[in-house]
Amino acid sequence: GQPLFVIAGLNVLEDLELARVTARRLKGICRDLGLPYVFKASFDKANRSSIHSYRGPGLEKGLEILKEIKAEFDVPICTDLHEASQAEPVAEIADIVQIPAFLGRQTDLVVATARATHSRGGLLHQKKSQNMAPWDTKQMVDKVREALGGAQISILCERGTTFGYNNLVVDMLGIGEMQKLGVPVTIDATHAVQLPGADPRTQGASTGGRREGVPTIAMAAVAAGADGVFLEFHPNPDEALCDGPSTLPLDRAEGLLRSLKAIHTARS
Amino acid sequence: GQPLFVIAGLNVLEDLELARVTARRLKGICRDLGLPYVFKASFDKANRSSIHSYRGPGLEKGLEILKEIKAEFDVPICTDLHEASQAEPVAEIADIVQIPAFLGRQTDLVVATARATHSRGGLLHQKKSQNMAPWDTKQMVDKVREALGGAQISILCERGTTFGYNNLVVDMLGIGEMQKLGVPVTIDATHAVQLPGADPRTQGASTGGRREGVPTIAMAAVAAGADGVFLEFHPNPDEALCDGPSTLPLDRAEGLLRSLKAIHTARS
Amino acid sequence: GQPLFVIAGLNVLEDLELARVTARRLKGICRDLGLPYVFKASFDKANRSSIHSYRGPGLEKGLEILKEIKAEFDVPICTDLHEASQAEPVAEIADIVQIPAFLGRQTDLVVATARATHSRGGLLHQKKSQNMAPWDTKQMVDKVREALGGAQISILCERGTTFGYNNLVVDMLGIGEMQKLGVPVTIDATHAVQLPGADPRTQGASTGGRREGVPTIAMAAVAAGADGVFLEFHPNPDEALCDGPSTLPLDRAEGLLRSLKAIHTARS
Amino acid sequence: GQPLFVIAGLNVLEDLELARVTARRLKGICRDLGLPYVFKASFDKANRSSIHSYRGPGLEKGLEILKEIKAEFDVPICTDLHEASQAEPVAEIADIVQIPAFLGRQTDLVVATARATHSRGGLLHQKKSQNMAPWDTKQMVDKVREALGGAQISILCERGTTFGYNNLVVDMLGIGEMQKLGVPVTIDATHAVQLPGADPRTQGASTGGRREGVPTIAMAAVAAGADGVFLEFHPNPDEALCDGPSTLPLDRAEGLLRSLKAIHTARS
Repeated sequence: GQPLFVIAGLNVLEDLELARVTARRLKGICRDLGLPYVFKASFDKANRSSIHSYRGPGLEKGLEILKEIKAEFDVPICTDLHEASQAEPVAEIADIVQIPAFLGRQTDLVVATARATHSRGGLLHQKKSQNMAPWDTKQMVDKVREALGGAQISILCERGTTFGYNNLVVDMLGIGEMQKLGVPVTIDATHAVQLPGADPRTQGASTGGRREGVPTIAMAAVAAGADGVFLEFHPNPDEALCDGPSTLPLDRAEGLLRSLKAIHTARS
Repeated sequence: GQPLFVIAGLNVLEDLELARVTARRLKGICRDLGLPYVFKASFDKANRSSIHSYRGPGLEKGLEILKEIKAEFDVPICTDLHEASQAEPVAEIADIVQIPAFLGRQTDLVVATARATHSRGGLLHQKKSQNMAPWDTKQMVDKVREALGGAQISILCERGTTFGYNNLVVDMLGIGEMQKLGVPVTIDATHAVQLPGADPRTQGASTGGRREGVPTIAMAAVAAGADGVFLEFHPNPDEALCDGPSTLPLDRAEGLLRSLKAIHTARS
Repeated sequence: GQPLFVIAGLNVLEDLELARVTARRLKGICRDLGLPYVFKASFDKANRSSIHSYRGPGLEKGLEILKEIKAEFDVPICTDLHEASQAEPVAEIADIVQIPAFLGRQTDLVVATARATHSRGGLLHQKKSQNMAPWDTKQMVDKVREALGGAQISILCERGTTFGYNNLVVDMLGIGEMQKLGVPVTIDATHAVQLPGADPRTQGASTGGRREGVPTIAMAAVAAGADGVFLEFHPNPDEALCDGPSTLPLDRAEGLLRSLKAIHTARS
Repeated sequence: GQPLFVIAGLNVLEDLELARVTARRLKGICRDLGLPYVFKASFDKANRSSIHSYRGPGLEKGLEILKEIKAEFDVPICTDLHEASQAEPVAEIADIVQIPAFLGRQTDLVVATARATHSRGGLLHQKKSQNMAPWDTKQMVDKVREALGGAQISILCERGTTFGYNNLVVDMLGIGEMQKLGVPVTIDATHAVQLPGADPRTQGASTGGRREGVPTIAMAAVAAGADGVFLEFHPNPDEALCDGPSTLPLDRAEGLLRSLKAIHTARS
């Protein structure tokens, strides 16, 4: 069978040096383990809860950083976008263009991104919405294929489903349901452990601690048959400018990826 | 106390005549019952499941129809938008501008819409996402207020929460939670009875029949304290170009609005 | 149509005087409002979380208290049971015998209770489990009817559905689903606002405050079509020996029942 | 670390020969793989949906069969019970006594079972209810320990959580939450793939097909850290007298247990 593939990097770009440190380390680990590797980082966090939150370097500066990473480390790039107008410039740099979960049904965005990406030989990483059943991703995949006259460039990504308030759950049976559509499926273990919103009963304290769940979800999903993993790291998550509580320290990457490879092998 | 207010009309604009028939009827009923009335219709359904679905007349033609309705019937208008670039033209016509549930956290869209709307004295109708806890709407309200230097123009709208797969549930306790933020809360009884996605186990058959749930949800929510109701009608729902299964026939509007007024009064 | 009926009283029996105070007050209010009234109290809380919690006076002493209340105030009695062996003595006193939500599928208990109750002309109050869909109560109703050779003595009770962790939600559309089975449906607004378990993130603090939700759920459910309400009161809920946080003060009974009657009338 | 332990056998006892076939096969596989093995079968299904369903041979005849299996194959036995009065006879035969999920909070049953089991050196297998958060199993473990004056004989079992209507989901993060209590945790992959109730929208057809999910859930849970697995087999599931749709064919046991062992090793 195919080796497990790894889309991993930063939640959001901060500066070039951080991206270099992260890409170098992750590429090295994946090369040693024989796992295909794609560097991921966002240039804009367009839907932060608060208007005051750090959003990233933005489109122009962000793509420049990604271009440098791609050249220096010879790695494919994955990044996400938020408006149809960003499709062309993003697809110019990114090999895998990601459509955020909240925007997965916005027809104009999906069609423009699919076309810009396909025309350059790239792939789409389509996140399943938190409020979508696994089988309903068929509509997402169909929309892309119909926009491309039949071509199939979708990778589906599981990132958890709404489970009551301020919580997500990953339904491991959903991975196989999505694979029935004939597309590869990844597990975004980082976002799947987020506790959405800020529970006022705990003044937000409840969002801490789930970082420990990332390896659990990643290992379980690979055992359940996921084709790839999506993971976000930071050399120092407690100083990360976005989503630190669900981000793993970079120095845990090697142990985790080694375990994931072993489970992937054991399952086969 | 305040009378119950009514935002009601069509799911999506089809043609001018349909809009006229609907506005005339609903305005007449609300006038007779002493309920403040706002005509609602969308010009673009930008996130249909399928690329082949009817999307509406589009921005330009749609705003023209809404302008005519506003002039002919002297009613305030409510419509929704999908990109920051639509904020100015939409706010020019609409008195209440609606931000869709899926897009409620897109900072650029929210800020542009808030500013365009506020500068013309309008209000925002902000739908709570299906995957958001009631108390987390605070972040949506704060984002608007901060974008406006402190002005408060938000109306929050409950439209159901993800409840397992292919289902929504309305938590009646959520209405009061949102009202604690100091803003009016409406119930979108039409979308709250939708069965999201198409359950493959039933080849989509499961989406029928919930239309009967619209009055139930509307009456329960008014009893639970909702300040306003949001309802979509069609003279012939089975021929509606979008969301027919959850749309009420126009000739049931009078009975329903009469019951809602009575419950609102009984509660006081 | 039928008037709204009221099953109301204490969560658990403490002493005779408390039961007398509660029955006298509630009976008086319901008589004044023209609402049929049944006194409810449990003699044993057999499934408390902790082994140290107060369980009640037990079967023998409890039934004695209930018998006195029945005689003194000339009211029908509702109480619940937990083992098949309790069916005969309980049915001897209680006019409406309640089967707890957790035990609703225990065939031996259900059959014994149905027979003992039916042979004395009583009714069953069957609570829907927190993990059961409304339409699956058909199996509960069928089990009783088949045990009785076709007789129908079921009243179904909605008390909330599991919604993520440590939370319940009442699906107002479920009331009508259960009524399709041809049986009356009550809303247990007291238990529906419980926050099950003790969220360790808040050291149990999260269980407070939902008492305010009881009127909201009761009013919404009556607006949604419930045939009866089930409510627990205490003259001083903060000193109640069980479930105080979701129990209403007795002096709020009159206002609430008055509103419920008004909504029930408005709906008709 | 400890090897993965296996509690496996039949959903319900049918006749001695079926139990012998199943025990012989499973014991052989586990011996070859070096996995500790416990034979499981129920003598009474006390909470079937329908009064007409097969319930099993009953207490007396069932315990006789289990006693024969224990003697013939020299295997520990696991079975469940439903009333406090069954505790003594069941603990006489069973090495691991199981408390059903629906009954996990019935104090009298739990205390009697804990005492009868502990006095004979046995263990309790406590199923987490479908409506319970992982951290709330602390109350179940505490109740046992307090009934035993401090002794700890609990094994906790994850069997899925209510997820909307007619569905369960396994939260893989819950396994670690329960292990924080200091007790071993098993995954009941058989019941976790059940679709509770009978969805009227599909005339019950929806209950088919999930059997394929058993290996997925078992493998994911072992990767997530489960200490043991609980599995039900049948030589011919389509002729099983109870729960056939979620039961695996006996001839798939070897492949599955081999994979589970490999994943358990890979994880360590």
